[in-house]
Amino acid sequence: MMNYIIGVDAGGTKTEAIAYSLEDQELGIGLSGYGNLYMNYDKATEHIIQAIEQCRINACGQGAEECLGIYLGIAGIEVQDYAAKIDALLTNQYHCRVCGLHDSVLAHAAILGGEDGIVTLSGTGSVAFGLYKGKHATTGGWGHVLGDEGSGYHIALQAFKRMTLEEDLGLQRSRLSQTLFKNLHLDKVNDLKGFVHSADKGKIAAYAAMVAELAEASDEVSMEILKQAGKDLALMTQRLYPKLGIHEPVPVGVSGSILEQIHIVRHEFKHCLEREVGLTDLIINQVSVTKGACYLHKKETRCE
Amino acid sequence: MMNYIIGVDAGGTKTEAIAYSLEDQELGIGLSGYGNLYMNYDKATEHIIQAIEQCRINACGQGAEECLGIYLGIAGIEVQDYAAKIDALLTNQYHCRVCGLHDSVLAHAAILGGEDGIVTLSGTGSVAFGLYKGKHATTGGWGHVLGDEGSGYHIALQAFKRMTLEEDLGLQRSRLSQTLFKNLHLDKVNDLKGFVHSADKGKIAAYAAMVAELAEASDEVSMEILKQAGKDLALMTQRLYPKLGIHEPVPVGVSGSILEQIHIVRHEFKHCLEREVGLTDLIINQVSVTKGACYLHKKETRCE
Repeated sequence: MMNYIIGVDAGGTKTEAIAYSLEDQELGIGLSGYGNLYMNYDKATEHIIQAIEQCRINACGQGAEECLGIYLGIAGIEVQDYAAKIDALLTNQYHCRVCGLHDSVLAHAAILGGEDGIVTLSGTGSVAFGLYKGKHATTGGWGHVLGDEGSGYHIALQAFKRMTLEEDLGLQRSRLSQTLFKNLHLDKVNDLKGFVHSADKGKIAAYAAMVAELAEASDEVSMEILKQAGKDLALMTQRLYPKLGIHEPVPVGVSGSILEQIHIVRHEFKHCLEREVGLTDLIINQVSVTKGACYLHKKETRCE
Repeated sequence: MMNYIIGVDAGGTKTEAIAYSLEDQELGIGLSGYGNLYMNYDKATEHIIQAIEQCRINACGQGAEECLGIYLGIAGIEVQDYAAKIDALLTNQYHCRVCGLHDSVLAHAAILGGEDGIVTLSGTGSVAFGLYKGKHATTGGWGHVLGDEGSGYHIALQAFKRMTLEEDLGLQRSRLSQTLFKNLHLDKVNDLKGFVHSADKGKIAAYAAMVAELAEASDEVSMEILKQAGKDLALMTQRLYPKLGIHEPVPVGVSGSILEQIHIVRHEFKHCLEREVGLTDLIINQVSVTKGACYLHKKETRCE
């Protein structure tokens, strides 16, 4: 009889569920729409269940039999009583161990293999999560209205704000502004207001890639924005050290498109942490976040 | 035969229309819901027409006969082709002179009586508008996503961000945070995310009044936030001087609840402008913005 577990990564754009054998072999995958509970609780939970269902069907085709546990990393689960609601909903449906966690917790397990250390995520949003000698803590992750400094959304917004600053100061349009105007198909800066108020968070965050492209082509305004994002993410990370009582170098891992793919952001991030907290080891481990389920399951069964 | 004109102030929370005789006497008023075109173009224009209709009925009751012109100050009119659409819609309906302007332009006319100078508005949002020797220019007014520094929304957000900072730094809750937690009926900082993502702009901006109350009671964190708002509004205003080629002291007027009612913000604003641009005269003239219609109509007829 082949037992298995499922890891679910429910984020702002998609939900991914992967079934793993107890030997960490992938047995099946399920994909669906966004699973961020902020965005719309009912839709998000529908997407999460869709992804799990599809993954179960695929896993059964590979000989999987009994599901021992579902480990979910869900954006927005920390709000209201969502954690309890998700737990009740899924336990009722699947009659197995259900463990609903903040997305950063599952990512942390996946990247650091369940070991102590810190993982800093920057995709559309940003957050840092750390585990140290039995304690855990989070910094950042306040969402795009309250913060999410260093995130894709924040980077894109800095670029858009630069366009308004040039207008207020009566400056010539910078290379960055020119590129954004062209790409947004806008003539006037005023039309930018219409865009930012109608576009969703993910659509705005996508413009971070354009800032990265220009920075690669040595555009100074873009480089400055990305360096600041790296600094912001380092500061968020650094704040975990006193919160967790860390006084020695610990592994720091990164996750999400901004820290994984934008060299300038990661370089500045690493540089600040080397200087401020004596970072020695930055881990870039582009594993699926769902893999965290394997480590969490092992930790739990080891305790029993 | 008594001719009259109408002034309309269409903002983020309400729309006010007032009919004036050519001798600037109020003849009737109309009130309805928000007129900010960003929020919902169809609803906003419906509210604007409702307010005008009600105001016309009331004015007719006072003996008003022919409407010579409607002067509207409308939040969000600068976006897309809204100005032309509003113009066509109302001209078609009322067959008189229709003049759709940004809300800051009508406020400027009302506060400075149609004369040269600068008016800085800070209510839910913020913007500065100046008129000097035939030139005009705007700074700020980018909306709550791109900026609106020094506005009620921005002040409230700084207070909320303070709550997240205290959490990230593991600090004790400040007096400001404690008051906000109590008033928002929240226990955890995480629940703040749910609030800011579900509340509308106006509901968030309303918390600026609480920051002002605490500052009055000498709370330092609140005072700092308000001083920064005053500085931000002064910087926005100051940027109009080079844009308009102003090299002498000009009258500066203020409008909106934040600059009219919060002493600390206005004091810091005034202080910065005295130092930076030699401000001599700050005008606080709590007249209805609709009154701007009287001055604009006189300017126009004088030109004919």
